[in-house]
Amino acid sequence: MADLHIERRKRLAGLVAETGAEAALITRLVNVRYLTGLASSNAALLIRADGTALLATDARYAGTAAAVCPDLETVIDRGTARVLTQRAAAAGARLLAFEAHDLTVERHAELLAAGGERLVTIPFGRRVESLRMVKDEQEIALLRRACAITDEAFEAVLPLIRPGVTEREIAVGLERRMVDLGADEPAFASIVAAGPNGAVPHHRPGDRPLAEGDLLTMDFGARCGGYHADMTRTVAVGRVAGWQRDLYELVAAAQRAGVAAACPGTETKAVDAAARAVIDGAGHGADFPHGLGHGVGLEIHEAPLMGYDKTGRLMDRVPITIEPGVYLTGRGGVRIEDTLVVRADGPEILTKTTKDLLVV
Amino acid sequence: MADLHIERRKRLAGLVAETGAEAALITRLVNVRYLTGLASSNAALLIRADGTALLATDARYAGTAAAVCPDLETVIDRGTARVLTQRAAAAGARLLAFEAHDLTVERHAELLAAGGERLVTIPFGRRVESLRMVKDEQEIALLRRACAITDEAFEAVLPLIRPGVTEREIAVGLERRMVDLGADEPAFASIVAAGPNGAVPHHRPGDRPLAEGDLLTMDFGARCGGYHADMTRTVAVGRVAGWQRDLYELVAAAQRAGVAAACPGTETKAVDAAARAVIDGAGHGADFPHGLGHGVGLEIHEAPLMGYDKTGRLMDRVPITIEPGVYLTGRGGVRIEDTLVVRADGPEILTKTTKDLLVV
Repeated sequence: MADLHIERRKRLAGLVAETGAEAALITRLVNVRYLTGLASSNAALLIRADGTALLATDARYAGTAAAVCPDLETVIDRGTARVLTQRAAAAGARLLAFEAHDLTVERHAELLAAGGERLVTIPFGRRVESLRMVKDEQEIALLRRACAITDEAFEAVLPLIRPGVTEREIAVGLERRMVDLGADEPAFASIVAAGPNGAVPHHRPGDRPLAEGDLLTMDFGARCGGYHADMTRTVAVGRVAGWQRDLYELVAAAQRAGVAAACPGTETKAVDAAARAVIDGAGHGADFPHGLGHGVGLEIHEAPLMGYDKTGRLMDRVPITIEPGVYLTGRGGVRIEDTLVVRADGPEILTKTTKDLLVV
Repeated sequence: MADLHIERRKRLAGLVAETGAEAALITRLVNVRYLTGLASSNAALLIRADGTALLATDARYAGTAAAVCPDLETVIDRGTARVLTQRAAAAGARLLAFEAHDLTVERHAELLAAGGERLVTIPFGRRVESLRMVKDEQEIALLRRACAITDEAFEAVLPLIRPGVTEREIAVGLERRMVDLGADEPAFASIVAAGPNGAVPHHRPGDRPLAEGDLLTMDFGARCGGYHADMTRTVAVGRVAGWQRDLYELVAAAQRAGVAAACPGTETKAVDAAARAVIDGAGHGADFPHGLGHGVGLEIHEAPLMGYDKTGRLMDRVPITIEPGVYLTGRGGVRIEDTLVVRADGPEILTKTTKDLLVV
């Protein structure tokens, strides 16, 4: 992977040069990981416009850093951002770009003090996040594996679903199975929502036992090698009423419309609109109160965000979720979500569990 | 609990008044939780010097906020910090205190824009964190429960420990048992380190199988109602060599010395020194490269931090950990850690698992 990280840093150095700064200080840990391969709770990276880089981390990660990025000059110091700022200033830097969406006001003041009077800082923006949006095939392979584990955990837990079992038991079952199958850990806190709880998009699984006739929504995923899968399926417990089947088919149609619209070059709000039009057309527009989906990768939610008020365009090799939902307060809800990769020759669906309504 | 939160906000209002600001904007989520009871991923709280308060959160948490803090005026808006800043400015505030250790440079700039030209901001410091240091008995009861679950999980996993079992299997066993016993979730990613890995204080459990003659260090804990337990025990697998027993007894003696020194009024560095003197005296000072312990509560690491270079004094009802360790590169290590509450009549040890060396 070292070559990959060198290539990423090289591309970023070009963006540093564009800002006019001599160097950029990368402090968002997920961005440091993307650019070096090092997963650390205390690390920072200085990328110079000339293409060279300097990593800082503390003694706990010295061995890992040497193993993961042996090609990279590394300083071992607990004050990672401070030491890199001092080094940049000592080397004559006058203008240092920094991640204003990550550094706190307090840490920024410490850096200014460390850099000395002549050093000026400017926001670097979300340039690393933008680079991260288009994935290489190694990253997509990790997402594919995370999604396969997610599918397999779903299938393994299906036999557990019956009246009397609690939401929490199902969530624990899904999460344990994913870890047993080799996931680093669950990609996020699983949502398991039965009956009326299904009307709450972010319901936390509780001790409510399933009842026959419930719709049951499970939103969960595995994380592999740092990459996040995200899948939602809604099933019916025991039997299904007419209104439930209608609601399900509506959301499934909206989900298909969203997937069909997800092509390179398409505006993200147009993808959202394609799915939303189906739900609006059935008179349920007000019952779909969230965006259609989001990018996935080293973060569970990352660029591009897809909602009616978002801007941006899809590109080849951008992994996203498509997850429309309809929520009827007091009655229940349906959400159907896939993780997929936008491709020139049509989307590659990574989560392969059936989207036919299962009555279990 | 509502009365508790009202009392906490009242105490904080007094600290706001001291700064000269009309109000303080609390954005650290764990601080918002402490002051309101609301656990949310998007919330902020405005505390005015006159003792009144205004909460902001988004629509996902509207129902929870109404249930948890019905006494508190609440605005539902995704831009939680922005809307509170606008409200403060509209009510005539000229000076607003903010958490400079939490707000990013980018969000702070957004607040300045939202507040208008006349609004000036000043750092509020870690005043909420200082308030949080001394716990009330309801908080200590949650810590007690978290520690009891931690003890019980340890006992349940002991029979699993034998040559051939991997570090990861033991970590998964501990974490699952804690959740089965009613923990919210594990308090942090468990450390399980066998043989030479025991020389790495923050080792991540891997696929190395235990071997007879290993020292095995397990550092883990449960979280209950938001409160974190933290315990470490080192056991011997199958048999114990003389050097291993000597090392164990040394660390156990240091741990007892630290516990004995943990009294109200004592400087934290003096507690560290009491334990460190034992290890220094045996010639292992350089093999104990971290601080003696830390406060625990709504965060796994919080004030007071206890190390040779830290300042501060213990007080009655401050929960802390005491966790000396000695690490011998290539050979292994020992760490022994309790969570306890500093009390006027002597420390209350919350983690009750034996500190005699177990050979399992």
